Amino acid sequence: MKPGTLYGISLGPGDPGLITVKGLELLRQADRVYYAGSRATDGAESSYSRRMLDSHGLAADRLRGVFVPMSEDRTVAESAYREAFAGLLADCQAGRRVAFACEGDISFYSTFSRLLAFAHEATLPVEIVAGVPAFLLGAAVQAHPLATGPERIAVLPRLRVADELARCLETFDVAVLIKIRGVAAQVADLAERHGWSLLLCEHLGAPNQFVSTRPDDLRTRALPYLSLLIVRRTSP
Amino acid sequence: MKPGTLYGISLGPGDPGLITVKGLELLRQADRVYYAGSRATDGAESSYSRRMLDSHGLAADRLRGVFVPMSEDRTVAESAYREAFAGLLADCQAGRRVAFACEGDISFYSTFSRLLAFAHEATLPVEIVAGVPAFLLGAAVQAHPLATGPERIAVLPRLRVADELARCLETFDVAVLIKIRGVAAQVADLAERHGWSLLLCEHLGAPNQFVSTRPDDLRTRALPYLSLLIVRRTSP
Repeated sequence: MKPGTLYGISLGPGDPGLITVKGLELLRQADRVYYAGSRATDGAESSYSRRMLDSHGLAADRLRGVFVPMSEDRTVAESAYREAFAGLLADCQAGRRVAFACEGDISFYSTFSRLLAFAHEATLPVEIVAGVPAFLLGAAVQAHPLATGPERIAVLPRLRVADELARCLETFDVAVLIKIRGVAAQVADLAERHGWSLLLCEHLGAPNQFVSTRPDDLRTRALPYLSLLIVRRTSP
Repeated sequence: MKPGTLYGISLGPGDPGLITVKGLELLRQADRVYYAGSRATDGAESSYSRRMLDSHGLAADRLRGVFVPMSEDRTVAESAYREAFAGLLADCQAGRRVAFACEGDISFYSTFSRLLAFAHEATLPVEIVAGVPAFLLGAAVQAHPLATGPERIAVLPRLRVADELARCLETFDVAVLIKIRGVAAQVADLAERHGWSLLLCEHLGAPNQFVSTRPDDLRTRALPYLSLLIVRRTSP
């Protein structure tokens, strides 16, 4: 691990054992490990990443939380990221071994993206360690391939209109929906009408993991923010 | 690791350090580790997975190659898989700790899929350990997010008609093309016409890794079978 380089480390989804060997080695060598979390309006801080970091026995005095306030106003998040980057850059320039750790894969819809853009602006050397994205843990939990042969996969984050999914599944075999709260009930209706199969995934890899193939769970459950859904045109 | 269960272990792409901590622990506990490879018409056997397994220091007498003959006739491959599964099932039934290891993620276009189907038919208990798919290592090598925010990703294996990619990029932001030999030159032409950015990836994570953003490399290189391409509608 070279001092003066920013290491972006993927933690994998939920289960701490799903970090890569390389990622864990680099975290253990780091002088500072930054990680993302959120701060609610009442000031309460939470972080999925922190739980995973703690389970690897990393010393708490090397950990630095970047807590982004929950707000519709994106300038609030922007200034939290900018402030965090200033600290991180100072650590790199002081010759410390600095990592930023993110759940899932750090290139795949990650909160690290904003910091990475600042790092490129500042021409800070960056090294990224890839990881396991949550949707592939969903396939593993079901013990069914996500896709084989010529099958096509669509990844649709923050879908707002469920009909777009129906159009997509005319040419794709599998759709991975991320952040599904707005359209969950509509997707359940469409799935029943078209005979699609569903896999609802909540907190994959964590002790409170919940998975379900029942459309009704999409209608009745209070879905967590990061829940994901694998929709297949045909049954597994 | 429970004897009598088949463990499907993802090795990650090329770089042996990109296996998960959990996957490596299970491989070390296994009595038998099956892995896939191919047999050329001259009888020569090759296996990406074997190189990774050897680098983890697993004893060679525990490794069992499943070498599938290269043939247009899929019944040849089918009978090779069926024979391998018979051996694997016998090992499980004899109470051995049995794993099957595959490069990349084992649920993502993996040669394991056929064996997994046999395992389900035989009601053999299966446990899958997710891994890092190659396309996310491509994003890591470029130190650019594969996707952020509401961006949509399409995964298109074995594309035969490059115009389908143009249609796809009307509604998707990023396309991941796997097994691109047939359409590589056409994609280069389209990319230049539409101003898309390209990332050609060969042997990611391996010592002979090659990546390029130049359309001409798609026209002039002899692309390996498993080469992949990340196409973005806009520049990173």
